[in-house]
Amino acid sequence: MNSTIPYKIYLSEEEMPKYWYNVKARMKTQHPPFLNPATMQPCTKADLQPVFCDECIDQELNEKDEWIEIPADIRNFYKTFRPSPLVRAYFLERMLDTPAEIYYKFEGNNTSGSHKLNSAAAQAYYAKKQGLKSVTTETGAGQWGTALAMACAFFGLNLDVFMVKVSSEQKPYRKEVIRTYGANVIPSPSNTTAAGRKILKEFPQTGGSLGCAIAEAVEKALASDSCRYVLGSVLDHVILHQSVIGLEAKTALEKYGVTPDIVIGCMGGGSNFGGLIGPYMGDRIDGKNDIRFIGVEPASCPSVTRGKFAYDFCDSAKTTPLAKMYTLGCGFMPSPNHAGGLRYHGMSPIVSQLCHDGYIRAVAIEQNKVFEAALAFAKCEGILPAPESAHAIRVAMDEALKCKAEGTKKKILFGLTGTGYFDLAAYKQYNDGAMTDYIPTEADLQKGFATIPKCSANAQFE
Amino acid sequence: MNSTIPYKIYLSEEEMPKYWYNVKARMKTQHPPFLNPATMQPCTKADLQPVFCDECIDQELNEKDEWIEIPADIRNFYKTFRPSPLVRAYFLERMLDTPAEIYYKFEGNNTSGSHKLNSAAAQAYYAKKQGLKSVTTETGAGQWGTALAMACAFFGLNLDVFMVKVSSEQKPYRKEVIRTYGANVIPSPSNTTAAGRKILKEFPQTGGSLGCAIAEAVEKALASDSCRYVLGSVLDHVILHQSVIGLEAKTALEKYGVTPDIVIGCMGGGSNFGGLIGPYMGDRIDGKNDIRFIGVEPASCPSVTRGKFAYDFCDSAKTTPLAKMYTLGCGFMPSPNHAGGLRYHGMSPIVSQLCHDGYIRAVAIEQNKVFEAALAFAKCEGILPAPESAHAIRVAMDEALKCKAEGTKKKILFGLTGTGYFDLAAYKQYNDGAMTDYIPTEADLQKGFATIPKCSANAQFE
Repeated sequence: MNSTIPYKIYLSEEEMPKYWYNVKARMKTQHPPFLNPATMQPCTKADLQPVFCDECIDQELNEKDEWIEIPADIRNFYKTFRPSPLVRAYFLERMLDTPAEIYYKFEGNNTSGSHKLNSAAAQAYYAKKQGLKSVTTETGAGQWGTALAMACAFFGLNLDVFMVKVSSEQKPYRKEVIRTYGANVIPSPSNTTAAGRKILKEFPQTGGSLGCAIAEAVEKALASDSCRYVLGSVLDHVILHQSVIGLEAKTALEKYGVTPDIVIGCMGGGSNFGGLIGPYMGDRIDGKNDIRFIGVEPASCPSVTRGKFAYDFCDSAKTTPLAKMYTLGCGFMPSPNHAGGLRYHGMSPIVSQLCHDGYIRAVAIEQNKVFEAALAFAKCEGILPAPESAHAIRVAMDEALKCKAEGTKKKILFGLTGTGYFDLAAYKQYNDGAMTDYIPTEADLQKGFATIPKCSANAQFE
Repeated sequence: MNSTIPYKIYLSEEEMPKYWYNVKARMKTQHPPFLNPATMQPCTKADLQPVFCDECIDQELNEKDEWIEIPADIRNFYKTFRPSPLVRAYFLERMLDTPAEIYYKFEGNNTSGSHKLNSAAAQAYYAKKQGLKSVTTETGAGQWGTALAMACAFFGLNLDVFMVKVSSEQKPYRKEVIRTYGANVIPSPSNTTAAGRKILKEFPQTGGSLGCAIAEAVEKALASDSCRYVLGSVLDHVILHQSVIGLEAKTALEKYGVTPDIVIGCMGGGSNFGGLIGPYMGDRIDGKNDIRFIGVEPASCPSVTRGKFAYDFCDSAKTTPLAKMYTLGCGFMPSPNHAGGLRYHGMSPIVSQLCHDGYIRAVAIEQNKVFEAALAFAKCEGILPAPESAHAIRVAMDEALKCKAEGTKKKILFGLTGTGYFDLAAYKQYNDGAMTDYIPTEADLQKGFATIPKCSANAQFE
């Protein structure tokens, strides 16, 4: 602890970002446009307006502006939970006895327990500014639902959260946090929408799915002029909002003259990883740095490492626009023994394009290795990490141990996206020695790939 | 948000306290000594050594030194979760439309979810330094058990946590956090101790009690030379360790020239409140400031507002030394409908003496009012507070509204001790409109008072 770099770096409020970073403005190849599933033509603003807020659509389609101003009211709300600390992991380094320097950006110090609030804040603000009365969304594990409930409470907006029924039953406390912030939690499928009623009629005993919850949330939003749907990951404007993670990390490290050699993040929909790496990626694309970017996904849901780069639906109900991305097929479901989050079948189109173009290396890790890293980290750094975040911890530890073996002193930065306070059933499984690993077989993957739509844009796969 | 005072003030690591503050060195009247229950004579260091770590006993008995150095290894561990933010509650002020300035010191940003880690860090360090192999403790709700497990993991110490059986069953996830940090959780009563076996024989179906868990933890500690017992509240050395709360708050406010007019905290065993007010109290005793100190307790467990100032046992099993304190009687149990924590029958002897001498005003609040404040706070400030902490929020809001009515611009500081992530059953009760209030009747109180020991030191009550 004798270094001049403190254990934690907190920026002052003046140093917090006033602009989001739009990495698309520096990308040499833009990801192909979203396709309207009815016409198979690129989505226009008019296509998206019934579903999304106007300002978010403009951000979604913006490939030009590298910097987009953060409105003052959003920056004010950010002050309730930002700046987040950039931590020098001295105790992890000591435990690993590595010459590497390890840093992490910790996004879990807010009631949602994750980075999700960065985009929830923006989306709730824009909905309010547009004069809307309410928004809808879906939530699985509940972090996104909590984050959006917090933002809607702050900006004075009604919120309906369609929560996958089995999650709302297994995680009653997550549901309760969302209710405490004044939002309406509707277990999905519900009889409040045609989509829900249809599923209930066919499968009265179903525990629901994210696909069905999305379909219900979108239907509810379409039913009212003063309501829109909001999404917590995958889309370009969400990655834009999450750029505050990378911007703060970069500013904090630059104060001490540190440029990372390796930047590591976990990838589910890709929003936290995209937000963390964005501000470093612009220069990487232009050859002004040679940072290695590593995206970590679970071996049981290996979208990038084993998926196809193809046009696919963003939801399993096949109601959304099609995105060009790495995907296991919108019908792919990770094995039920998978406890570690990051269970999305696809990947952010921005992150997918950057992977495709060789700027990001994706790796997949089995969950016992992930939880082993989580426990080691908790014991020396104090924070109980979300299983999602522990994917990044695992790879950061492995890279630091490589440095030890090689005698090199690399600078490693990883994203610690959240806390594991609501994931203790998974920790119990690990503590009890009852956690199993699962890697999809080739046959499992082929079954998933069969759900990727057959369309001219995907002709190369047919 | 145009003031020059930022929303959050984080001290730099150099500004973090290097000494704890021992308020006893400035108190004009010391609290009477603990009594050995076998001899009814003041406890000596030798009496306490089989149970507690040597260094903690020295701190416990120290009435002389105003400043006690914090060892470097403890300060290093503090860096994993401190400094905690001192927050200017701009959004709460706006919501209340008050001219008052409201500040709070937030201690919940660590995995224990509370201030408990401040003392756990110190006690685990001293146990390790003394060459011990293990420590024991009891836990009810689990915050203290979590904090101690974190500290023992960090310093490399074995830990047995006797957890009230009904709590370990109702809060399996709290138990799991403790296990995740490597501690051994034993539901109490257990058959691992004579005290536990005795209770199990008499009451095979019992859900346990804190009194029984304490008796088991102490017995286990006494059984080994390399083991000691540690306690998370009430005692003087715990209040000493908690002085980092008040010291950081004072340093942060002084940077902006702010001296509070009112300092508010919740009181259970009294450790967080004692730690928050200590550094301001020295000058108050000497007439160098005229801060009003308000301690808030639940109306259902009103130790100070309706208790006796008498010698009583610290535990319901009547095994500990006797302390002179405000007490409802060691046999007092709050009504089962009480959801808001702070259920201890007594109160820290230091805080009790300061109340007795007129430096602190105690107030008692009913729980529906507490949860009402908790929800209002969560919606504008973002943080879901622990029900305990919400007692302080309630009174801070009431004082701010008095300022509004009077047109005065007072500066209010309160302690936000923790988060409510593990209290969602209580929030659910409130959200469902199913929370009831309860104020003990005179007959309830008399029943409790009857359990205060009849001894010469208490002759005035006989």
